Amino acid sequence: MHDTTPSTSRLTVLTGDRPTGPLHLGHYVGSLKTRLKLQETHAQYILVADTQAMTDNAHDPDKVRRNVLEVALDYLAVGIDPHKSTIAVQSGLPALAELTLLYLNFVTVARLERNPTIKEEIQARGFGRDIPAGFLCYPVAQAADITGFKANVVPVGEDQAPLIEQTNEIVRRINRQAGVDVLPEAEALIPSMGRLPGVDGKAKMSKSQNNSIPLSAAPDAIREAVRSMYTDPYHLRASDPGTVEGNMVFTYLDVFDDDRAEVERLKASYRAGGLGDMMLKHRLEDKLQALIAPMRERRERFAQDPGYVFSMLRDGTDRAKAVTQHTLDEVRTALGTFSFASVRS
Amino acid sequence: MHDTTPSTSRLTVLTGDRPTGPLHLGHYVGSLKTRLKLQETHAQYILVADTQAMTDNAHDPDKVRRNVLEVALDYLAVGIDPHKSTIAVQSGLPALAELTLLYLNFVTVARLERNPTIKEEIQARGFGRDIPAGFLCYPVAQAADITGFKANVVPVGEDQAPLIEQTNEIVRRINRQAGVDVLPEAEALIPSMGRLPGVDGKAKMSKSQNNSIPLSAAPDAIREAVRSMYTDPYHLRASDPGTVEGNMVFTYLDVFDDDRAEVERLKASYRAGGLGDMMLKHRLEDKLQALIAPMRERRERFAQDPGYVFSMLRDGTDRAKAVTQHTLDEVRTALGTFSFASVRS
Repeated sequence: MHDTTPSTSRLTVLTGDRPTGPLHLGHYVGSLKTRLKLQETHAQYILVADTQAMTDNAHDPDKVRRNVLEVALDYLAVGIDPHKSTIAVQSGLPALAELTLLYLNFVTVARLERNPTIKEEIQARGFGRDIPAGFLCYPVAQAADITGFKANVVPVGEDQAPLIEQTNEIVRRINRQAGVDVLPEAEALIPSMGRLPGVDGKAKMSKSQNNSIPLSAAPDAIREAVRSMYTDPYHLRASDPGTVEGNMVFTYLDVFDDDRAEVERLKASYRAGGLGDMMLKHRLEDKLQALIAPMRERRERFAQDPGYVFSMLRDGTDRAKAVTQHTLDEVRTALGTFSFASVRS
Repeated sequence: MHDTTPSTSRLTVLTGDRPTGPLHLGHYVGSLKTRLKLQETHAQYILVADTQAMTDNAHDPDKVRRNVLEVALDYLAVGIDPHKSTIAVQSGLPALAELTLLYLNFVTVARLERNPTIKEEIQARGFGRDIPAGFLCYPVAQAADITGFKANVVPVGEDQAPLIEQTNEIVRRINRQAGVDVLPEAEALIPSMGRLPGVDGKAKMSKSQNNSIPLSAAPDAIREAVRSMYTDPYHLRASDPGTVEGNMVFTYLDVFDDDRAEVERLKASYRAGGLGDMMLKHRLEDKLQALIAPMRERRERFAQDPGYVFSMLRDGTDRAKAVTQHTLDEVRTALGTFSFASVRS
């Protein structure tokens, strides 16, 4: 039994995803699983960040639009409960755009260019000299998202901690200018479990790398993904001793198999020789099939009723709109910028 | 007799001012006079650009707020008619912030840094390496302003023509991405009369240079400004030959004295010698007192009724809000980004 009316004493958490493709097991392990817990204890807002997705997908707005519904379905599929978490579409929240423009005046270009996350991402995307201005500015937009909800806690990957630092710098500058703590600083919640690697053993699971298992994967696709999984290339016969480290099947068993003792026994046996990949892959596949099956079923059920999903998104967006507009009004009042609301006519 | 209902076949013009100080004769000559004409022939929107003013006044939001009313009073004082022109406060138009964020994805950082107007202004403001990101991005915000109203014509100083070029580049990129001409290109309307110099002869009249005559100047202040005006420093006695070029009294007479023939006679006489500065200054002062007196009176009348001024601003902002929101919806539809409006639920 959970209380569905968020208590005012709860801390606020902001999370979200760029809607650029289906969510996969990496998202589940890295963040969705945490959100299922957080929605029981925190006032949780989840942003379908379509505006932010445009910062590196301006050439394909269609992809972003289509994936808004897909990501919402993924949320419902994993068990995000719209009565406990508020799911909102970023482009439906004009106050966030207004806060972004305001905050841009409190950050220098040089500071944005020094942001290590941005530096890495610019390189990863191969922008070269042609960095879209929106991309350089997206940490400021993210600061608007976080502060617009007055989030106290923001779950992020370790590589994104500099974005929270940037947010808090803006918070301090705004509070200093206002002469009052109108905005709270946010704390990065870095998951104890690191990032789930792709099935090919590469550091990052990603649709574009073709090494991911989507949360909507059909049973055959799950089987195929596990079958093709990177293990120990020198472990040719079951009787050979095998290596556990960097072996994706064990990496995944560590994450998805709750029987820790059995997994340790399997590791020992694999190292000693006498344990075949096939048996391990069957075990892992069973775990993944069991995890994903109820998600896939819930997803299919919701997918048959897009009207419900959109009305859920609209309700969440309306609630988020009121919250973020309230923050914008507070920030403007604290800074003393013009507002019709403050005019005594 | 003028038709006060704007015809749909009228071209749209967008103008405006950053509310950072009282408007002065330089504004009158450079733009307000043109606006009085344009409001008879165009659908004219005038933006009190308080959001843009924050891009170089983030340390003093109070100044910007106070000047919103002052600038509105200056508009009414010179004869801007809210039934003919729509006067709107920029911060009341969230669609402009949303368009700005969208457009930032269609401009590179390198392109913004190359903008000659921005380069000059960065130097003039002494930002050095500490350029606020909002300042670098303001040409994009200006593109949002211009296109948000689908302005066909934008009166700008010659030095601001690159800003219109930047706007049209964005327009072309958006139209190309959308595959349809959702936005019109804008044309710069560069005034035939150049910039009015300050009373000290410096190129730019500006409050901060202390060389301006505000439109709200009291008779004494006008007299004092004309008395102190830069003439020919070598014209010591009335009988000496004097120089007309660079002599502010003649520069101003050229602008404010409609009796062209008489001004030419005075120039000839001054050059020949025998014409004293004092007589010329009296003549100029009479012209300026006659020009400013009715403005000052109108201004004082409106200043006694701030409730009226705010309700005028609120009405204009509401109208502008509808127009700019409509443009945002059109752009989003054309690009195919997400919108609840387009969802068939």
